[in-house]
Amino acid sequence: MTNLYKNKRVLITGGLGFIGSNLAIALVERGANVEIYDSLVPGMGGNKFNIKPVRSFVRLKIADLRNDKEIARAVKGKDIIFNLAGTLSHVDSMANPFLDLDINCRAQLCLLEACKKYNRGVKIVYAGTRNQYGKAHYLPVDESHPLEPTDINGVDAIAGEKYHFMYQKVYGIQVVSLRMTNTFGPRHQMKHSKQGVLNWFIRQIMEGKTVSLMGGGKQIRDVNYVDDVVLACLKAGNLKKADEQVYNLGGMPISLLGFTQSIIKVWGSGKIRIIEFPKNRKKIEVGDYIADISKIGKVCGWKPKTDINEGIKKTIDYYMANKKYYF
Amino acid sequence: MTNLYKNKRVLITGGLGFIGSNLAIALVERGANVEIYDSLVPGMGGNKFNIKPVRSFVRLKIADLRNDKEIARAVKGKDIIFNLAGTLSHVDSMANPFLDLDINCRAQLCLLEACKKYNRGVKIVYAGTRNQYGKAHYLPVDESHPLEPTDINGVDAIAGEKYHFMYQKVYGIQVVSLRMTNTFGPRHQMKHSKQGVLNWFIRQIMEGKTVSLMGGGKQIRDVNYVDDVVLACLKAGNLKKADEQVYNLGGMPISLLGFTQSIIKVWGSGKIRIIEFPKNRKKIEVGDYIADISKIGKVCGWKPKTDINEGIKKTIDYYMANKKYYF
Repeated sequence: MTNLYKNKRVLITGGLGFIGSNLAIALVERGANVEIYDSLVPGMGGNKFNIKPVRSFVRLKIADLRNDKEIARAVKGKDIIFNLAGTLSHVDSMANPFLDLDINCRAQLCLLEACKKYNRGVKIVYAGTRNQYGKAHYLPVDESHPLEPTDINGVDAIAGEKYHFMYQKVYGIQVVSLRMTNTFGPRHQMKHSKQGVLNWFIRQIMEGKTVSLMGGGKQIRDVNYVDDVVLACLKAGNLKKADEQVYNLGGMPISLLGFTQSIIKVWGSGKIRIIEFPKNRKKIEVGDYIADISKIGKVCGWKPKTDINEGIKKTIDYYMANKKYYF
Repeated sequence: MTNLYKNKRVLITGGLGFIGSNLAIALVERGANVEIYDSLVPGMGGNKFNIKPVRSFVRLKIADLRNDKEIARAVKGKDIIFNLAGTLSHVDSMANPFLDLDINCRAQLCLLEACKKYNRGVKIVYAGTRNQYGKAHYLPVDESHPLEPTDINGVDAIAGEKYHFMYQKVYGIQVVSLRMTNTFGPRHQMKHSKQGVLNWFIRQIMEGKTVSLMGGGKQIRDVNYVDDVVLACLKAGNLKKADEQVYNLGGMPISLLGFTQSIIKVWGSGKIRIIEFPKNRKKIEVGDYIADISKIGKVCGWKPKTDINEGIKKTIDYYMANKKYYF
């Protein structure tokens, strides 16, 4: 894969965020010509420090996808767009559905309209989410599982994905969607738990705090270490036969209790407290989730490679060295 | 069913429109206490003349769903909401995706947020569309057919429907969705074809104009006469066991050529011209569509009763008598 991205002109929306910045670094290493586009909305995970290792090798534009002029300029001439911009918070989307709509639907339409007008030959990798499925009817969840989200964010992610495939059918823009699961690793924001609990638990253990696990932490989550997610993006982004399809990521199911115990094991100490689900939280709790990842395995040859303990160790090492930029 | 709606407090969003106004008349006849809520956006089908027969028996509010204060007042104390507000145009949604998003997603969220805050005990009948399916993978199309719309309007209708079911799961608002198909009959706007061609063809024949049929008019559409759609709304709106589900309407498949020939037969004369698909239109043309309506038959005991020729005759009679309010 090393050569496939050499000199490719790549746009990463949300490129200062967790997955976007890790992807940017991987793309620069592979010789791609990278532009990062990020709105740096406070609290959303964007962080300029995330791209420090490659700052002088990328073009960085701080702008919103809803800025017509800037996004038009940004899509022109690109070969591939990794479209990672968007919010991920269950809780925020329920508290402010209109903001979620604006960021996850309107902004996506802005990007797609720009591609329609200025670059129909581009390929887009869309970042979907397991949140689109809602509560699992069966396990493991494959890509044809019904889409019945239990929060606004899940509905908006479905609309965002469907816009992409609609623009593909009508305007010929090539699209692939990766439905991502709980991802952890370096460069995730560490200020709050609203965009995912895995890194938050890591911070709590690192700070000697007690991790509170709702419902005993028995819920199974399918987790990925960020490097594996980056690899999935790279594979799907440059494989013609992957186009026009949706793929689940995942492949490392573990209970939240099990994950927390792994952090404690790697860190060397730590405390867990079992609490009840708060009433509002329980209603949007989706129960166990395990992804069927056989489709991306078959088409793209992807499966996660990083052992959970190894991933946790790398994550802890990163934040130990760079605590002041995240904590 | 006559008594089931007696004194029920009903809100009809889009109640000055085609289906909404016919439903309002039927509800008043059944003794319901009806409020009509309509924004009267020009070109969208709302027409005050539509409710002339019941004007003095209904409360009429001209306001947008996005008017927080008015929608809050309107949902309070209602037993049932027939949520028929929204746009239906394939073509307009492609030309202006942002407007479609605003009217079909944002406005729906405004209604649902109002119900969440002020009336969680309400039941909502959502007007879905066969447009949510896109091009049929198989015929007849049942409710579990993949949702792969070929236009923005279809994506937004999916989001609108999924918001409803999400609010049901999380906040307990009861919801049923009817995925409507091409409907014809009295009170449809007659100024343009963008919200459906059936009534447009009727006007053209009535005016001695030639009906142009793209692709030979061989495309099968599943059509309903509006009285049958109203009956489906009434049945689904007051049947507890119908809740939490999606139902197809339809049940009278006919080619556009066949439908036009029926108009000509009922009217007594008329001309047809066969034309090619314009390039842009072809891309969003969904091909044949036939709905599987067995689910609503089984649960609600509904099937269409109006013969196509009879429906066309009633439609022509209506517009002959009221031409000046529509043509």
